[in-house]
Amino acid sequence: MSKVTIKNVAEKAGVSVTSVSRVLNDRGYISNDLRTKVMEAIDELNYTPNEIARSFYKSETKSIALVIPTIHNPFFSELAFYIEKELSKDGYHLYIGNSLNDSVNEREYLKMLKEQRVDGMIVGSHNIDMEEYDKITGNIVSVERKINDRIPMVESDNYLGGKLATERLIQQGCRKIICISGSQTVDTPASNRVVAYSDVMQEHQIKEQIVEIPFAESAAEKHKRIKEIFASKIEFDGIFADDDILASYAIKEATKFDRKIPEDLKIIGFDGTSLMQDLFPELVTVVQPLEEIAQKSVEVLLQLIKHDKVENVYTLPVRLNK
Amino acid sequence: MSKVTIKNVAEKAGVSVTSVSRVLNDRGYISNDLRTKVMEAIDELNYTPNEIARSFYKSETKSIALVIPTIHNPFFSELAFYIEKELSKDGYHLYIGNSLNDSVNEREYLKMLKEQRVDGMIVGSHNIDMEEYDKITGNIVSVERKINDRIPMVESDNYLGGKLATERLIQQGCRKIICISGSQTVDTPASNRVVAYSDVMQEHQIKEQIVEIPFAESAAEKHKRIKEIFASKIEFDGIFADDDILASYAIKEATKFDRKIPEDLKIIGFDGTSLMQDLFPELVTVVQPLEEIAQKSVEVLLQLIKHDKVENVYTLPVRLNK
Repeated sequence: MSKVTIKNVAEKAGVSVTSVSRVLNDRGYISNDLRTKVMEAIDELNYTPNEIARSFYKSETKSIALVIPTIHNPFFSELAFYIEKELSKDGYHLYIGNSLNDSVNEREYLKMLKEQRVDGMIVGSHNIDMEEYDKITGNIVSVERKINDRIPMVESDNYLGGKLATERLIQQGCRKIICISGSQTVDTPASNRVVAYSDVMQEHQIKEQIVEIPFAESAAEKHKRIKEIFASKIEFDGIFADDDILASYAIKEATKFDRKIPEDLKIIGFDGTSLMQDLFPELVTVVQPLEEIAQKSVEVLLQLIKHDKVENVYTLPVRLNK
Repeated sequence: MSKVTIKNVAEKAGVSVTSVSRVLNDRGYISNDLRTKVMEAIDELNYTPNEIARSFYKSETKSIALVIPTIHNPFFSELAFYIEKELSKDGYHLYIGNSLNDSVNEREYLKMLKEQRVDGMIVGSHNIDMEEYDKITGNIVSVERKINDRIPMVESDNYLGGKLATERLIQQGCRKIICISGSQTVDTPASNRVVAYSDVMQEHQIKEQIVEIPFAESAAEKHKRIKEIFASKIEFDGIFADDDILASYAIKEATKFDRKIPEDLKIIGFDGTSLMQDLFPELVTVVQPLEEIAQKSVEVLLQLIKHDKVENVYTLPVRLNK
């Protein structure tokens, strides 16, 4: 028996091939009558849509998935805000998944990509093995996460940020500078902030002091760790904190420990979200260009969707806010 | 033997193909009588639904849209976080749309609901005419927004919150209490916070002083307006701010104007997101039960999807954080 095609289905149902495709892909207005006719024809002919033919007929889903550690963090909520804004200009809708300590969720969205339920994915998180990403052929852009050589990455110039912050502290007379860093067990571009700190400290022949406080820790635990630094015998006149939330904790503790900012202690943070700059106008911080990161990620993803050539890494400049 | 089709089942059962499909996919209202007839016919004919055809009949998308003013605000990002968490337990994915000053986006998601590209929608925002919502028959739950009598709403007990805050300030000796309120031009449940403030003030025969600072204003404009209050000749010893961000601005300005908190000035905010409580541990605030609001919204939406009966309004209790 010769293979049943979509054309046979259309003939049997007495409708156009386009109508059959609309029903198959559940797109556009489909009357009950049309749906019934088409499904009856499919049933009678025992038609199994050829997957390749199907995806050919299948219009785009116009949906993109964004997987981030947690939307419940000013950096990621601001990034998501700009990504959604940018995508909506091109008529795309955005799924948002929180994956902090939850590889199930990340895997779930990868599955959606595989099943072509989304046209692409932006990933700012990875709980799961890089090998799983290696198997995926869909359109993925990563933000601040190096996944593999095939998946383009958009990042801030983290090294420049660490350099600017450390040099500023040294310029302002600090000689005992603590770097409070997110855990570096995961190899993220953000770890270059700390590399830059170390390089600048070495250049100036100043001893480095790095304290690691993993990003995934609870707020209470992070608070506690910062407090311990102030309560300890460690001497310091400068703090370079890996993110603004850690910097804001350090500012609070400084007040409690009667350390005047900036006279006795200088603190520089990282991220520069508008919320944190707004809530802490006095905060000196390395500003990541969040809107540009979002725009570039979307731009590159849309290029991938259109099968355009893209680069491997896009590094965007950072600056001190003051 | 020729293949048994859904049409044969329908004929045997004496019902329409659509009815058979409803039973197969467990969608829509199905009477016991219908179910029995169809199942008997299936049994007698030994019908095996073509799996592919079956999945086409099934119109669930397992997607929900959340439309909020902006994810770029701690209240909504925390709400979105919990809603996504809750939905993912039931295998749903979440679209997030920001609609602040953007009715196009809100309308776009309504269109998706109409086209059954999402199974339901949670709305914490409304730029567009209530009449447009009246026309929509899809599954919608609103959060802190009264849309119409058909759409169930989940809200905090805003009146209780305003009452708790104002009574606390009076208890602590304040007699000149300013209420800083988001604009009340939109009739939102949140306006009950200010109603409660007025009621308590009247009860205690204290003159009310309400300053309106619309939610949609820029951070800079809000800052400026708060500063003006401190720079003005208005006398006040207490502030009840409609949200924690406004409260945090007031705390900053108080420091600049040498007003000691809580000795010279007492400030109470509203929302109690974990981020704001974390960044401002000293902040006294009315805590909205965000996780419970998210859980209830999802629960009600899933009930609507299953055609279960739901109530019109769900009001969840609030509390002072200290």
